[in-house]
Amino acid sequence: MQGVRKRIDVGVLGATGMVGQQFVRQLARHPWFRPAWLAASERSEGRAYADAAPWRLSDAPPEEVRASRVDGCVPGRGPRLVFSALDATAAQDIEPAFAAAGHLVVSNARCYRMDADVPLLIPEINADHLALLDRQRRARGWRGAIVTNPNCSTVVLAMVLAPLRRFGLESVLVTTMQAVSGAGYPGVSSMDILGNVVPFIANEEEKMESETCKILGTIGDSGVTPHAVTVSAHTNRVPVIDGHTEAISIALKARPSLDEVSGALASFKGQPQALNLPTAPANPIVVSAAPDRPQPRRDVDRDGGMTITVGRVRRCPILGVKLVALGHNTIRGAAGAAVLNAELMLATGLIGED
Amino acid sequence: MQGVRKRIDVGVLGATGMVGQQFVRQLARHPWFRPAWLAASERSEGRAYADAAPWRLSDAPPEEVRASRVDGCVPGRGPRLVFSALDATAAQDIEPAFAAAGHLVVSNARCYRMDADVPLLIPEINADHLALLDRQRRARGWRGAIVTNPNCSTVVLAMVLAPLRRFGLESVLVTTMQAVSGAGYPGVSSMDILGNVVPFIANEEEKMESETCKILGTIGDSGVTPHAVTVSAHTNRVPVIDGHTEAISIALKARPSLDEVSGALASFKGQPQALNLPTAPANPIVVSAAPDRPQPRRDVDRDGGMTITVGRVRRCPILGVKLVALGHNTIRGAAGAAVLNAELMLATGLIGED
Amino acid sequence: MQGVRKRIDVGVLGATGMVGQQFVRQLARHPWFRPAWLAASERSEGRAYADAAPWRLSDAPPEEVRASRVDGCVPGRGPRLVFSALDATAAQDIEPAFAAAGHLVVSNARCYRMDADVPLLIPEINADHLALLDRQRRARGWRGAIVTNPNCSTVVLAMVLAPLRRFGLESVLVTTMQAVSGAGYPGVSSMDILGNVVPFIANEEEKMESETCKILGTIGDSGVTPHAVTVSAHTNRVPVIDGHTEAISIALKARPSLDEVSGALASFKGQPQALNLPTAPANPIVVSAAPDRPQPRRDVDRDGGMTITVGRVRRCPILGVKLVALGHNTIRGAAGAAVLNAELMLATGLIGED
Amino acid sequence: MQGVRKRIDVGVLGATGMVGQQFVRQLARHPWFRPAWLAASERSEGRAYADAAPWRLSDAPPEEVRASRVDGCVPGRGPRLVFSALDATAAQDIEPAFAAAGHLVVSNARCYRMDADVPLLIPEINADHLALLDRQRRARGWRGAIVTNPNCSTVVLAMVLAPLRRFGLESVLVTTMQAVSGAGYPGVSSMDILGNVVPFIANEEEKMESETCKILGTIGDSGVTPHAVTVSAHTNRVPVIDGHTEAISIALKARPSLDEVSGALASFKGQPQALNLPTAPANPIVVSAAPDRPQPRRDVDRDGGMTITVGRVRRCPILGVKLVALGHNTIRGAAGAAVLNAELMLATGLIGED
Repeated sequence: MQGVRKRIDVGVLGATGMVGQQFVRQLARHPWFRPAWLAASERSEGRAYADAAPWRLSDAPPEEVRASRVDGCVPGRGPRLVFSALDATAAQDIEPAFAAAGHLVVSNARCYRMDADVPLLIPEINADHLALLDRQRRARGWRGAIVTNPNCSTVVLAMVLAPLRRFGLESVLVTTMQAVSGAGYPGVSSMDILGNVVPFIANEEEKMESETCKILGTIGDSGVTPHAVTVSAHTNRVPVIDGHTEAISIALKARPSLDEVSGALASFKGQPQALNLPTAPANPIVVSAAPDRPQPRRDVDRDGGMTITVGRVRRCPILGVKLVALGHNTIRGAAGAAVLNAELMLATGLIGED
Repeated sequence: MQGVRKRIDVGVLGATGMVGQQFVRQLARHPWFRPAWLAASERSEGRAYADAAPWRLSDAPPEEVRASRVDGCVPGRGPRLVFSALDATAAQDIEPAFAAAGHLVVSNARCYRMDADVPLLIPEINADHLALLDRQRRARGWRGAIVTNPNCSTVVLAMVLAPLRRFGLESVLVTTMQAVSGAGYPGVSSMDILGNVVPFIANEEEKMESETCKILGTIGDSGVTPHAVTVSAHTNRVPVIDGHTEAISIALKARPSLDEVSGALASFKGQPQALNLPTAPANPIVVSAAPDRPQPRRDVDRDGGMTITVGRVRRCPILGVKLVALGHNTIRGAAGAAVLNAELMLATGLIGED
Repeated sequence: MQGVRKRIDVGVLGATGMVGQQFVRQLARHPWFRPAWLAASERSEGRAYADAAPWRLSDAPPEEVRASRVDGCVPGRGPRLVFSALDATAAQDIEPAFAAAGHLVVSNARCYRMDADVPLLIPEINADHLALLDRQRRARGWRGAIVTNPNCSTVVLAMVLAPLRRFGLESVLVTTMQAVSGAGYPGVSSMDILGNVVPFIANEEEKMESETCKILGTIGDSGVTPHAVTVSAHTNRVPVIDGHTEAISIALKARPSLDEVSGALASFKGQPQALNLPTAPANPIVVSAAPDRPQPRRDVDRDGGMTITVGRVRRCPILGVKLVALGHNTIRGAAGAAVLNAELMLATGLIGED
Repeated sequence: MQGVRKRIDVGVLGATGMVGQQFVRQLARHPWFRPAWLAASERSEGRAYADAAPWRLSDAPPEEVRASRVDGCVPGRGPRLVFSALDATAAQDIEPAFAAAGHLVVSNARCYRMDADVPLLIPEINADHLALLDRQRRARGWRGAIVTNPNCSTVVLAMVLAPLRRFGLESVLVTTMQAVSGAGYPGVSSMDILGNVVPFIANEEEKMESETCKILGTIGDSGVTPHAVTVSAHTNRVPVIDGHTEAISIALKARPSLDEVSGALASFKGQPQALNLPTAPANPIVVSAAPDRPQPRRDVDRDGGMTITVGRVRRCPILGVKLVALGHNTIRGAAGAAVLNAELMLATGLIGED
């Protein structure tokens, strides 16, 4: 059925930056969405996309967008559905203006993630949080809306924790080893990271500790009640291009066996799988039996970068269970996350007539 | 006083490998020890050291040893004090044979570290464990002895925990990001580690979890009683040449303030400082106030690689305190550790005629 | 027409090593060839392929071969067409034995490349050198044959030079910056190459200087007359996973304009394009107009790794023309090269009924 | 004699950037110069140096300068001798203003290197070019002067060519593999260089091709006559922190033997050695006999980074001789070069009473 869906026009705010390029790449080959409107700052306005956006990704810019004229980020212009690849400073004002003008803004920016009436969405985990959109429109008087995806390192963690909620999540200690692409372009200086580890990423630990609880929370009449799990994060930058690796120790009330934990992870599915969304992997979590996996360079591209790979599920003498998880930070953790959010909204009728 | 000490002849077992080269480099410029006897496998016997040991370190082999003839690892040959850079397989038989023949074997190998009558020594922490040597000689009938230093990743952790014993160590969760030099030469294939993280190092987690308790243990009439702290380790290899970085969360019974923790670390001193041993840093732990330190490439060589750098001392919402520590794995964690052990033994009269 | 060709069974000698894995990966998705027979050393014989060949490539081993039993390298077993991923030592005896037993051995090994009656084949350049096979069979009394592809760094250079033969090649000075995958697994130690350049690869300069002349040579009744171009190579290893980059200066008798040089490169085509071979790129050389390309990480996978990317075509004040070229060393420079050789042989009737 | 020289006060323009930090580090431990005056842009003026200059180098900022107040770049302030670590844009106006105000500006900036009356100085090669200072003062009416050192990649090449002038330099083809530190901080994005090679550095090839001829030129009444050697450069960035590696092919009229070439390089000395200048290495060029050297990580720090290491001296079938050279780009190629220039000027009386 979904194979015959006609592609709808979508826009990209901040289309020329590195995250924007990832949106454009994903959308150019998407069966449901067509990147018909590319917007960026005034500096780029009027230029051909191929000129305005020096391409930072490994393949060439998609043919169909090379000649597109870049437009300004003016609310009301462009299609109803717009993806936001804006940095936080720009997103702060531009995203609400677009929502007010009737656009559905599917955003990767951090500004509104923790607002009480904004869904912080991972479709496999909390598709029901989209119910916040009614509150959001009522509260803000918008015809449009803002929907967000989490920070890249949070996505990997939340995906691992979601299937374990049944065992009673108590506390989670995570140490990340994050790729440089998470910092954008030019982002991390080569002088800082070649042959080095930087044990600090600004605000990253705070985001992981708060966003995770909201994502795993339950929605009721009064909005989202955050999950009570305690999260403690150590975040580190390592000389890897793509893929955040996370060493995770977890305390679970029910004290499941390791087989039960692995089984819960490997069998995890959600709305994207039930709805057979175009970019949804059949199994959003793959559990590797190899002793030394996951590894970013070898596992990051599994299923187009949308699958989390887990390995080394074993006993933690302190918290009970420990394991290693890996996800593609710029796909499952950014552009791909937003695209999956939009697929869910389209498939469930939230985007409506085009 | 110690400045006028005459250099004594010492030997190196396994002198041609990478760890052996580090011993030779350290000893060639040592004020108390002279690398007078270099031993290796039969393949190297009789050859000039410079030919038998293709140099893997960043500077050139020391002039004074280039022409030395490499001898075989035959007990009885060579000076009383020998450093062992043997791998575990070779060390298993050779080290006891040397001890039986009257040599003091100061070993970096893992074979005998956990034996009840063998000191697992970090001079700042457990100099009193040298009392085990009497037990060892009685039990084994040796005229010589074996003294060991810990695994490289354990040293960094144990150094951080030692000053915190006063606050009541309960549990410690550590995630390491370890340099490739820890695996020797050729060690880690470039195909495995360039732009990658490998979340597994064989037996490393087990070593950290057991060795730490022995090192921090108390010695009594019946030997060493291991410390009761629970240690849980995630060990990872990262593309760094030298320096193990460790993200550590710690539960302390006394719930000290962060200032008390930092103060305890920064003021930590032990026998090497009291005795003013030649390679002992004035402060074996330096606490950095920078938000993004320690970093291996920038901090690893502090005080010739003998100092542990700690940073980011902050609250852990789960265990109470978290921080990052860094140490030089082939110096403080291997050759330098053994040399400091020998300095302590010489300064305290355990090596005998000088 | 070729779309309806039935897949023929082929074999792989040395299937468990890293080059063998690349053959298996290429063949598992090949429209003409089916990897029906996987052979390796005695150690692997009888084991399932997935167990015998710890997978080193970035994706998982193909489903269809995971359970295949590995056979021994015994001449007469296996299909008529076998690809050889053997190292030189093993290839020395095994390849002739297979050729004598009637197999067509399409080899990536270096042993027989420079033999006067063995084609050193790049199908775009010297498809006519396959005429050597008659000589080879007569001279050696074989029913089968050996066909070879060049060394990985030679392929990149020869591809660039072939279209420039029309201008009169006089001399070529090339400096390579070669990926670590060219040395196999474990190959280059991380201790040697992290943050480093090694300005030496054993025998590599000699291979580039001799193989290039044979490849570009003309075939006549007395065999191949090597091209008279003088080649001088500096070969270097750099910390790159895949992709050999080559800085090339060229003296051309006809002194063409830079546009003529770029045009000759960009329009280059050969038999693989004429025959529309399955893995042949439409344009085997792509000339980039960007000022800073080619780059291995961004350009190496173009057209599945079968295309050479050239950039920075400009004047050389000494030799006349300079440029930079890049090719995928384990695809266009190894397994993919051999597969293209076999496609050419099949399409031109040299493999015949199976 | 020089041991008893009193340290003179010197200044640093642009002291807070990465090159400025290297000057400060070099000067803080210099026997002749004391970094008494640190100047930078208005943004830093009045702040303590340790606060104004986030330290990018591997060790800590020198104690003696941590508390120094940073001054503005105002001509007339500060000591007579000032080192300029300014970028080209700033240097364009500031350096002449300081020279006009009576300062001796020893500059690492590129602006005035190719001016006919400005020495482009490598003390081992062209100490006599300091005679240009008289012309400079007369022509410009300055009481002070500007003296420059070459671009970092040029220094390595020029040092290799200088001893070979006796054989009649005809042409030189050089391919560089340059470290990221050559681009300053933040400089090269990690997204561009991790696991990659970038075969382009803006204006670098032009600088190598022109500066080399001026450096090797002869001085006469009408100024410097550039050497007639033709230089052709391919410049590349590689993932190395410090150290430019250069693969060099050289045509020499006299066709010396390889031993004569190696001998000329190894025995090369100049004014710095004759005058025993403090940072001059005993042998400015060391020729390695190892088959795989020089390598940046293993050789770059030789003699504090002031020595050029050469290896692989061998026949080039096109130009006659080929070899590999390596030098420390931020020491011998930048801050250390300028400091050696100032040492030469002080030792030869050109700086005079302060």
